[in-house]
Amino acid sequence: MPRTFSITRRVLFAETDMAGVMHFANYMRWMEEVEHAYFRSLGLSIMQPHDGRETGWPRVHVSCEYFAPARFEDQVEVRLEVTDLTDKSMTYEATFWIDERRIARGRVKAVCCAMTDDGFRSIPIPASVRQAIEAP
Amino acid sequence: MPRTFSITRRVLFAETDMAGVMHFANYMRWMEEVEHAYFRSLGLSIMQPHDGRETGWPRVHVSCEYFAPARFEDQVEVRLEVTDLTDKSMTYEATFWIDERRIARGRVKAVCCAMTDDGFRSIPIPASVRQAIEAP
Amino acid sequence: MPRTFSITRRVLFAETDMAGVMHFANYMRWMEEVEHAYFRSLGLSIMQPHDGRETGWPRVHVSCEYFAPARFEDQVEVRLEVTDLTDKSMTYEATFWIDERRIARGRVKAVCCAMTDDGFRSIPIPASVRQAIEAP
Amino acid sequence: MPRTFSITRRVLFAETDMAGVMHFANYMRWMEEVEHAYFRSLGLSIMQPHDGRETGWPRVHVSCEYFAPARFEDQVEVRLEVTDLTDKSMTYEATFWIDERRIARGRVKAVCCAMTDDGFRSIPIPASVRQAIEAP
Repeated sequence: MPRTFSITRRVLFAETDMAGVMHFANYMRWMEEVEHAYFRSLGLSIMQPHDGRETGWPRVHVSCEYFAPARFEDQVEVRLEVTDLTDKSMTYEATFWIDERRIARGRVKAVCCAMTDDGFRSIPIPASVRQAIEAP
Repeated sequence: MPRTFSITRRVLFAETDMAGVMHFANYMRWMEEVEHAYFRSLGLSIMQPHDGRETGWPRVHVSCEYFAPARFEDQVEVRLEVTDLTDKSMTYEATFWIDERRIARGRVKAVCCAMTDDGFRSIPIPASVRQAIEAP
Repeated sequence: MPRTFSITRRVLFAETDMAGVMHFANYMRWMEEVEHAYFRSLGLSIMQPHDGRETGWPRVHVSCEYFAPARFEDQVEVRLEVTDLTDKSMTYEATFWIDERRIARGRVKAVCCAMTDDGFRSIPIPASVRQAIEAP
Repeated sequence: MPRTFSITRRVLFAETDMAGVMHFANYMRWMEEVEHAYFRSLGLSIMQPHDGRETGWPRVHVSCEYFAPARFEDQVEVRLEVTDLTDKSMTYEATFWIDERRIARGRVKAVCCAMTDDGFRSIPIPASVRQAIEAP
């Protein structure tokens, strides 16, 4: 299954903080970045219409463990692996690597939702999305 | 005219960078923050419906001069002054103060726009907004 | 023990995303914001010298569950509770409330570290900090 | 002179706001991103020691004009041109392009500084940096 994917990204100056390292909240943004690049690699977008409605993937749970800091201009590989796919949700793990050293590991659980005037309503993952993720 | 307004804000850790000071792009966000607080003080919101459409204020020009850095936990007063109001646009100046020292000065020109499916279309500033800004 | 604390914060425009809600990564920044305000309330700073070295609190684990979105200009109360204090680490829970509705709950484990030229080295929490947190 | 340079960058989800477009402050971060990539292309880093001191380039003036919005997943080319180089400062212009449409234009003036315990002190641009920028 093409459920793994990776990007390589350099730490930007604006992503550092006064402790001289990448601010911990930015790992969350990077997890989203690799997720969206993964979707694009499948020919999908994370924001796309299904049955006449915009759909998205709000997060219901995120976590991250930090093993070592990342610094300005470090090249970091972010590896995504889809670890669970239910009727309405996707869970993935993202690991962060500098050379062969794993510096952080995060997990995200996101739920497929239609965007309504009232907010988000969970829906079954569209067949086209499921097939792309599950394709051999 | 109630065209001046100020807020006081502490520099957050996440707003600093590895040089140990507030990152220069965050002054732009603070200028928007004081602008929106100013609108709220007039009983308005920067995003509100007029004539059945959502309106907003996209920026067409912004600038900032930096005189001295701001550091973590510094208390900074941000003073807004509306300097120009045309049929469709508002221009304001924001100055940043630590005690009596002016550390930065920025300017923003924003255009009142209706949000359409195609994007933004400039519209005359609604009378209620204009009156609130121009009220003695 | 004065191990609980809260701040109230309005969602800023720059904190929203195209889904119309506060971006999930910003909850991490708000958890840090309430933590630092809590330290200030104890007369401490999260970045301060001990024994001639700068100390800080790098995160080793963070997580957040999301129950409902927060929108532009929502007033959100962020409540911090210190749930564990070991020799070298502090763990706290932060809950996010709009009126009486809990919209998110996060946890952060941070380790007290001295900043050295090589990076961070964990150290026992200084007595003055421990006493301030544990004071009745 | 190798005073022009460009990068291509996709708009991230976290860089959009509730108006559905890239938030205006993020253009400032992108200007810095192209500047730093330009320095790397010259074999330099924006943060590097000279004469035993860390040097950096604090901004003294920035501005940006916005002609059209950028949206999620848009591919944007950011072109940098160094327009002025004085004894102690560098000024550059960055233009933002989607296909052949220029959507924004910014300018940054940065001053070469040594980082001291008291803050920043302007210094002449080191010869190695000047030569790299001015090389034919």
